[in-house]
Amino acid sequence: MRIVDLIQRKRDGGELGKEEIEFFIQGYHKGEIPDYQASALLMAIYFTGLTDVELVDWTQTILSLAPVFDLSDVPGPKVDKHSTGGVGDKTSMIVGPLAAAAGVTVPMVASRGMAYTGGTLDKFQSIPGFNAHLRSPEYKAALRSAGLAVIAEDEELTPAVKKIRALREATGTAESVPLITAALLSGKLAVGLDSIVFDVKTGSGALIKKMTDSRRLAQSLANVAKRMDKKTVCLISDMDQPLGNAIGNALEVMEAVEAMRGNGPPDLVELSLELAARIVRLAFPDRDLESAKEQVFKLLGDGSALKKFRQLIEIQGGNPQVIDSFELLPTSSEEFVVSSPRAGFVSRISADDIGQAVALLGAGRITPEAQIDPAVGIVLEHKVGDRVQAGERLCTIYYNSNAHLEEACQTVEDAFHISANAPETRPLVYEVLQ
Amino acid sequence: MRIVDLIQRKRDGGELGKEEIEFFIQGYHKGEIPDYQASALLMAIYFTGLTDVELVDWTQTILSLAPVFDLSDVPGPKVDKHSTGGVGDKTSMIVGPLAAAAGVTVPMVASRGMAYTGGTLDKFQSIPGFNAHLRSPEYKAALRSAGLAVIAEDEELTPAVKKIRALREATGTAESVPLITAALLSGKLAVGLDSIVFDVKTGSGALIKKMTDSRRLAQSLANVAKRMDKKTVCLISDMDQPLGNAIGNALEVMEAVEAMRGNGPPDLVELSLELAARIVRLAFPDRDLESAKEQVFKLLGDGSALKKFRQLIEIQGGNPQVIDSFELLPTSSEEFVVSSPRAGFVSRISADDIGQAVALLGAGRITPEAQIDPAVGIVLEHKVGDRVQAGERLCTIYYNSNAHLEEACQTVEDAFHISANAPETRPLVYEVLQ
Repeated sequence: MRIVDLIQRKRDGGELGKEEIEFFIQGYHKGEIPDYQASALLMAIYFTGLTDVELVDWTQTILSLAPVFDLSDVPGPKVDKHSTGGVGDKTSMIVGPLAAAAGVTVPMVASRGMAYTGGTLDKFQSIPGFNAHLRSPEYKAALRSAGLAVIAEDEELTPAVKKIRALREATGTAESVPLITAALLSGKLAVGLDSIVFDVKTGSGALIKKMTDSRRLAQSLANVAKRMDKKTVCLISDMDQPLGNAIGNALEVMEAVEAMRGNGPPDLVELSLELAARIVRLAFPDRDLESAKEQVFKLLGDGSALKKFRQLIEIQGGNPQVIDSFELLPTSSEEFVVSSPRAGFVSRISADDIGQAVALLGAGRITPEAQIDPAVGIVLEHKVGDRVQAGERLCTIYYNSNAHLEEACQTVEDAFHISANAPETRPLVYEVLQ
Repeated sequence: MRIVDLIQRKRDGGELGKEEIEFFIQGYHKGEIPDYQASALLMAIYFTGLTDVELVDWTQTILSLAPVFDLSDVPGPKVDKHSTGGVGDKTSMIVGPLAAAAGVTVPMVASRGMAYTGGTLDKFQSIPGFNAHLRSPEYKAALRSAGLAVIAEDEELTPAVKKIRALREATGTAESVPLITAALLSGKLAVGLDSIVFDVKTGSGALIKKMTDSRRLAQSLANVAKRMDKKTVCLISDMDQPLGNAIGNALEVMEAVEAMRGNGPPDLVELSLELAARIVRLAFPDRDLESAKEQVFKLLGDGSALKKFRQLIEIQGGNPQVIDSFELLPTSSEEFVVSSPRAGFVSRISADDIGQAVALLGAGRITPEAQIDPAVGIVLEHKVGDRVQAGERLCTIYYNSNAHLEEACQTVEDAFHISANAPETRPLVYEVLQ
């Protein structure tokens, strides 16, 4: 078998068999197939796609290269949600505790941020002492006692995915729908989930920006999971403006805590409840969606979710006092206020620009090796649809270094569009595929 | 400037500016841009193409990385032809001497074979003593005294092309029409040609097999050359069956000599005359095509071309006696005859299969490092359209080693299609673009 023949076949729209997919992924994983042939194949796949059958083989091959967690001795249905990532998306910190409070076992896998803002892992790690680098026995023990646990997606979990992902990032193939499908599914299945709720983001701040592509991804995730006998629900949700008000790692922890106290921004609360209810529904198939929604609404209101979050922090070595005293979280030394240049309606807040601005402040990684600053970020005072006066505060920038401040401020100002008329409202959840 | 941004732009069908193309080609040439990003860009280009403007920039950047030969002190119009390569194509050995005999200065660049059979360089080098690794002063001296000279396309000539070509071969991007255009044009312009006749092959034995793609390549060559103020003519000629009867390096030298003695196979003679006449027409714009054709026909018949060929061999250190005594050329020790399994018409001789068979015998390179055997090859006794009897000889295989003989014979047998009815005749030259 020659890799160049497989590249040519994919390039010409042909299909690869199971053995050929194994030949490529195993060979690349072992370093027998060079990066330059792998990247050519990935770019060909970007253009010609992978069939659902190829995606099942691809995902299974990736899973075969690392020991999949066996959670059969952990009681309860194992369900989690996965978002394709967005600016200000801190739903994982709310949804996990909510679902666990409802009796679901939630084995969370959190990754570092790749672009823009920090990932869920970076957000959890902004809590002093929080350790997500658990070994399998610790992870299982946490799941047994708290009903949820967070493990860092790292080398051991899906090494082939990591290697392919790094190559995708460098070669303009990150946005390939089938390659995203395989990476997402294998990442989740590696920790032994029974069912998955996917939150596919669409809009300027999402990895996949166009609705047609987001729909293709949601469909692909649903189809391939079904072929692998895993139940899934895929939501397509808005990521054209940031989710919630806080963007930045510790700032997002604070907002998540506020949401679990009943003080969260409406969009964040709505999406978190929707996702949590979908998890409950997948975990307990005899429950209907309405009762699941009622239950998670109650669990958010009565402090059960926050209690679960406290338990999670404790069990993973973090300082649970941060919940009561936000000053125990990293905070920035400086603030800068961005005001509205004129009166009108906020017609757009480009999530893309806001993401780039917080990356410039140090909240995200501009290069893969970069250290992030957990304290910095932006808190929006207004969202799309709000009426503002000239000179009224649009947002506050929290920063520690002047290095890129000016550029960040300019980017934030560009992100806000103020128009004379109220914009049309966009839905928060566009579609649900099951 | 980040290469990943350029990859994404090409991937999405955008255009690159001159500085961006320079950034890529110069960076890749210097080793600052890794192979895996270059191959992703090449694959994106395979799918989205390069505009004529991009191709001019691309070609000029390649030419800027090596000293282009300055032939301004060599008298006469400098014109050569270039074929995209095919099985049994030995026209260069006939056309060069013919055009030189007609008063054109013919600076030939010959390359090694990449697939299948040997390249023109390998064919010339099967002549004992023939040295194509000339330096610029020797090359110019040969051009001045004989009116033609052959130089090996090597590292110094177009190093960026060579590096990109090797990557293309390994990554399934060799067949990209714009990348072929840039490679062909820069290769020819590097030796200081004023005008070029391109012979774009189409059919099973060609690099580009489909007529639509061949036409795209011919059009692209013509357009880009025009923008670079170089006159070209592009022929699209048949490469579905081998050209002439001999395939294999020394065997093709013998057939070329026979053609210059007036004993050549009709298709080889016809195409050689056509190409030579086109060269003469480009070199002397006041001449019409008919008179150019008459002239080269005469020069072939009266021995002038062969005399020029003899002069070329002498001046490049080869033994001109091979012309009179073929036994001075490398010859194989063994022969094998392939006969027709039944009576009928030869309806097809797959050039692709014949090419693979001679590669198996050792006449071509299966890997880039492989040594070729100049003596081995195949001589066809019948061509498409011929009527044959059962058991009649179809071709003779000349070989030195049994290693892949059986596979080669099988491939040759598969190459011949014998049908009950006479096949439709295909034209030798399909189109001429000027």
